[in-house]
Amino acid sequence: MTAGTGGDSRRVVVLAHEKFPDRAKTATGVLKYADYDVVAVLDRDNPGTSARDHRADLPDVPIVASMDDAPEADALLVGIAPIGGGFDESWRDDVRTAIERGCDLISGLHYFLNDDEEFAELAAERGVEINDVRKPHEDLSVSQGRAADVDADIVLTVGTDCSVGKMTVSLELLEAARERGVDAGFIPTGQTGIMISGWGNPVDRVVSDFTAGAVEEMILEVGDDYDVLFVEGQGSIVHPAYSAVTCGILHGAMPDAMVLCHAAGREAIHGYESFEMPPIPEYVDLYESLSAPVSESSVVAGALNTSHLDDGAARDAVDDYAAELDAPAADIVRFDADEVLDAVLGE
Amino acid sequence: MTAGTGGDSRRVVVLAHEKFPDRAKTATGVLKYADYDVVAVLDRDNPGTSARDHRADLPDVPIVASMDDAPEADALLVGIAPIGGGFDESWRDDVRTAIERGCDLISGLHYFLNDDEEFAELAAERGVEINDVRKPHEDLSVSQGRAADVDADIVLTVGTDCSVGKMTVSLELLEAARERGVDAGFIPTGQTGIMISGWGNPVDRVVSDFTAGAVEEMILEVGDDYDVLFVEGQGSIVHPAYSAVTCGILHGAMPDAMVLCHAAGREAIHGYESFEMPPIPEYVDLYESLSAPVSESSVVAGALNTSHLDDGAARDAVDDYAAELDAPAADIVRFDADEVLDAVLGE
Repeated sequence: MTAGTGGDSRRVVVLAHEKFPDRAKTATGVLKYADYDVVAVLDRDNPGTSARDHRADLPDVPIVASMDDAPEADALLVGIAPIGGGFDESWRDDVRTAIERGCDLISGLHYFLNDDEEFAELAAERGVEINDVRKPHEDLSVSQGRAADVDADIVLTVGTDCSVGKMTVSLELLEAARERGVDAGFIPTGQTGIMISGWGNPVDRVVSDFTAGAVEEMILEVGDDYDVLFVEGQGSIVHPAYSAVTCGILHGAMPDAMVLCHAAGREAIHGYESFEMPPIPEYVDLYESLSAPVSESSVVAGALNTSHLDDGAARDAVDDYAAELDAPAADIVRFDADEVLDAVLGE
Repeated sequence: MTAGTGGDSRRVVVLAHEKFPDRAKTATGVLKYADYDVVAVLDRDNPGTSARDHRADLPDVPIVASMDDAPEADALLVGIAPIGGGFDESWRDDVRTAIERGCDLISGLHYFLNDDEEFAELAAERGVEINDVRKPHEDLSVSQGRAADVDADIVLTVGTDCSVGKMTVSLELLEAARERGVDAGFIPTGQTGIMISGWGNPVDRVVSDFTAGAVEEMILEVGDDYDVLFVEGQGSIVHPAYSAVTCGILHGAMPDAMVLCHAAGREAIHGYESFEMPPIPEYVDLYESLSAPVSESSVVAGALNTSHLDDGAARDAVDDYAAELDAPAADIVRFDADEVLDAVLGE
């Protein structure tokens, strides 16, 4: 696994009770893409199995029922994010045990573990670190419109909706680019991406005026160290709740190219079913025309999530999607990333 | 003055040192539109003059050099907002004196006066209230996409840039509508609007994920009490730094109609001069096409700020702007609001 950019090889236990693997996006993302040495997954519903038993693309990591059954580790990572980002009290024993065993905590919850009196006290006592990755740092500011000044080409994943695979597509393209020998980096913008990378600004959690600035800051920090930067997009420009973050990332990143991510067959905004999704060409127009006044950019390729379809149906769906986009498209997790990467790199 | 919606008739002193009137948007907004009884303006550069001496559209309020020279009052309102929203130490004596005289504080600075040790202690001692209007309340959340459900028609001001008069246009339309007997209300989204209205969410200061939700919350709160709601827009959809807030307000407000605000002659984004402004029809397309997937809405009229032009040039500029927009337009501060209001109300 080479997608992590932090080079953090700590031994990590990933908490994913009752939601593994399908509703544990952070856990599976960390298992697939992070540099950590994941030594166990906590899932009280599936003790005695392996992550790979549940999904073939995951590594062979044992699942145990609680922290008491976990092997020696350096950190406990909260790998699930309930709606609202709260803390589930049924996890308290595991977190307490982890601290008592000297593990650091890594969490992307909206509920900051540093603000939990018991955990904060115990952590201070045991000298372990609590890393609330969703807590923005203090000196964020407004964008200066300078992201385009860096040496790297900026490739942004944009979406037709939430949860269509923008982070995964960015990370798969990163790996594919590196396999070709391209000096490529990753800009995380959400808690899972940050946990995988070991750094980053939680753009959905910053002060709204600083949305673009939080992205720009990361790009300016590493943009001269790479030839290509894959920026993790968030939400969708037509999302009734999250479009502000999408728009801020678009203008803060000033992309050279965009990859439109979509889930095959989805027709309405997830969780907002009264909002029909517009046709694909309308998305392309919207992203390109909104980007243009800040930085000219094109949707150069598409990434389609076909995980619920059989192979034949998946290939048909990809063909249809490419036709609607009028650009190369693939399910780059299921098939391969070559054609999309060619388009992204202009090759 | 009838635009204030809070009915707050406290006697207020407005702090505007060295920036009155042209760089004191909050001070002049409060003087023109709020229900407060403004008893003095603090400006050490202009003691002995009247607000009206500086701008004919302002009321006849005395300007004094310091809080020591101010008449009896119930509150001190910070009417200027330096870049970055910090606290200017040269104001400390005035703020201290105000608290000592029993005045409440009203401030829209990013620097919260409640967090200033001296002011917080002194305020507790004297029993006065410090109202940091830019501090978002704790239980904001994501939008549910429901603003369109309220009884009121929603009219949103959108802009070609920052500082083109969106708040002023909303308030002038509010007054004009009320003069016609329309039951109209105002949704503030920035610190000046909030100070004028006496309530509201500082949308540019909320967690980015809650941008649309912060607007929706206000509309749901009062939207069934009015026939028309004028929503104060922020920023511009093409602004390199602030577009996220603009986009969140657009989708959170789900407007029935939009009024495009512009400053005559401006050709580049203010403070971001390397970013050329697109042609007016492109703005119209962008706002309408971005709004459509969440709520169908049209730019029905334009508002042009011509304050730096003579009357003849102003009229020419308005005619040109109306032609570019292909819709009625006016400088509704300088001339009258009738034609724009007709378009907004569909009359």
